[in-house]
Amino acid sequence: MSQNMPIKTLEAVLNDIISIKLKDQRTFRGRLTRCDMYMNLTLTDAEELESNETKAKYGQLLLRGNNILWIQIPT
Amino acid sequence: MSQNMPIKTLEAVLNDIISIKLKDQRTFRGRLTRCDMYMNLTLTDAEELESNETKAKYGQLLLRGNNILWIQIPT
Amino acid sequence: MSQNMPIKTLEAVLNDIISIKLKDQRTFRGRLTRCDMYMNLTLTDAEELESNETKAKYGQLLLRGNNILWIQIPT
Amino acid sequence: MSQNMPIKTLEAVLNDIISIKLKDQRTFRGRLTRCDMYMNLTLTDAEELESNETKAKYGQLLLRGNNILWIQIPT
Amino acid sequence: MSQNMPIKTLEAVLNDIISIKLKDQRTFRGRLTRCDMYMNLTLTDAEELESNETKAKYGQLLLRGNNILWIQIPT
Amino acid sequence: MSQNMPIKTLEAVLNDIISIKLKDQRTFRGRLTRCDMYMNLTLTDAEELESNETKAKYGQLLLRGNNILWIQIPT
Amino acid sequence: MSQNMPIKTLEAVLNDIISIKLKDQRTFRGRLTRCDMYMNLTLTDAEELESNETKAKYGQLLLRGNNILWIQIPT
Repeated sequence: MSQNMPIKTLEAVLNDIISIKLKDQRTFRGRLTRCDMYMNLTLTDAEELESNETKAKYGQLLLRGNNILWIQIPT
Repeated sequence: MSQNMPIKTLEAVLNDIISIKLKDQRTFRGRLTRCDMYMNLTLTDAEELESNETKAKYGQLLLRGNNILWIQIPT
Repeated sequence: MSQNMPIKTLEAVLNDIISIKLKDQRTFRGRLTRCDMYMNLTLTDAEELESNETKAKYGQLLLRGNNILWIQIPT
Repeated sequence: MSQNMPIKTLEAVLNDIISIKLKDQRTFRGRLTRCDMYMNLTLTDAEELESNETKAKYGQLLLRGNNILWIQIPT
Repeated sequence: MSQNMPIKTLEAVLNDIISIKLKDQRTFRGRLTRCDMYMNLTLTDAEELESNETKAKYGQLLLRGNNILWIQIPT
Repeated sequence: MSQNMPIKTLEAVLNDIISIKLKDQRTFRGRLTRCDMYMNLTLTDAEELESNETKAKYGQLLLRGNNILWIQIPT
Repeated sequence: MSQNMPIKTLEAVLNDIISIKLKDQRTFRGRLTRCDMYMNLTLTDAEELESNETKAKYGQLLLRGNNILWIQIPT
């Protein structure tokens, strides 16, 4: 099953921009530079969004995977 | 017991459309392209539903398995 | 202790109808077709119950084990 | 330490009647027929209690261990 | 580090009386007869306390470790 | 990475006084006598603080690591 | 995948100042001196922030990784 793991979807978009919804309903967006099997993510140019508007800019951000609800990934 | 694991039900419907209920009661629907033993799922043509109507479209979505309550799977 | 594991109670009723109470207090009923040691379950003819009445029908359902409070199993 | 594990207290009362308090404060009582190291329990003649009165009867019940607060065990 | 594990503090007081605070803020007291590395505990002469008064007596009690906040241990 | 693990910060202050903030926002203070990799801690001369005042004294206390938010450690 | 793990982002900034957002929405800032794969962190010159102002100073602080939402890391 390992060839088909969903985490491969993330690895395939390293350096692309992804959107992340956290369990606390916050939305983040940034360029994915690192990821691991727990869905821990390193983003650059990270920003928090509210109603699709930039609410805050964070530069480089490490998101802890266990807070993540879903990740929107460009096809 | 491994031949009879529920995750096999998912593997059997790769490329089919499934519905997912999250713990926060949101409903998602999409075409299953990847899954793993934690029930992490990659969906394409993913959409969020409310009262069976499309509320939002996400394209490709990676859902983190630990948020999932149940998955409705076509027979 | 492995011969006496509670999960064996489930394996003994494959293809029988069971009832499941989730932590969010919902009740489901269906025919058990698969189970694993995490209590992940695949049901067919799955339905959600409210006050012992059918509230919704789902066909085939994969329930994630960590949401389960208890399972009522025919003797 | 394994000879002294608390789970041995359960194994010593197989076929005896125990009471279980869940995290959601419900109380169950029944005859213990199976247990494992996660405190998953199979009970027969299982009933739910409220103020020491029978509130519901379930026959055979599989309780998922991670919901359990404590188990009262006859000495 | 294993020689210095906090669980050794518990093993050193087997057969002594300890007090336990649960995450739901209840307090229990009893004689420790078994413990394991998850802090699962078997107590005899177990009682629940409220404002230092006995609120209920349980005889032998198996407390699931993951509910425990802290344990007061005689020196 | 093991030489640089944060738990080493704790091991370096065995027998010193530390302050602990729990997830339920309570504050404890005491002399650290044991610790393990889960941040389970044994304290002696343990006390609970409220607004920097002693609220309760517990003697020897075993704190379960998964309740801990942070630990203030003397340099 | 190990060469690309997000935790490497942290190891690369040892001795630099980072900001941490906890799940309870508190913000901390300090100089990172230790980290591990669970995102447990040791900080020196640690302070808690509120609206970007210093609310409290803690000296050396060990933050338990499972409370962390995200970490802002200088590039």
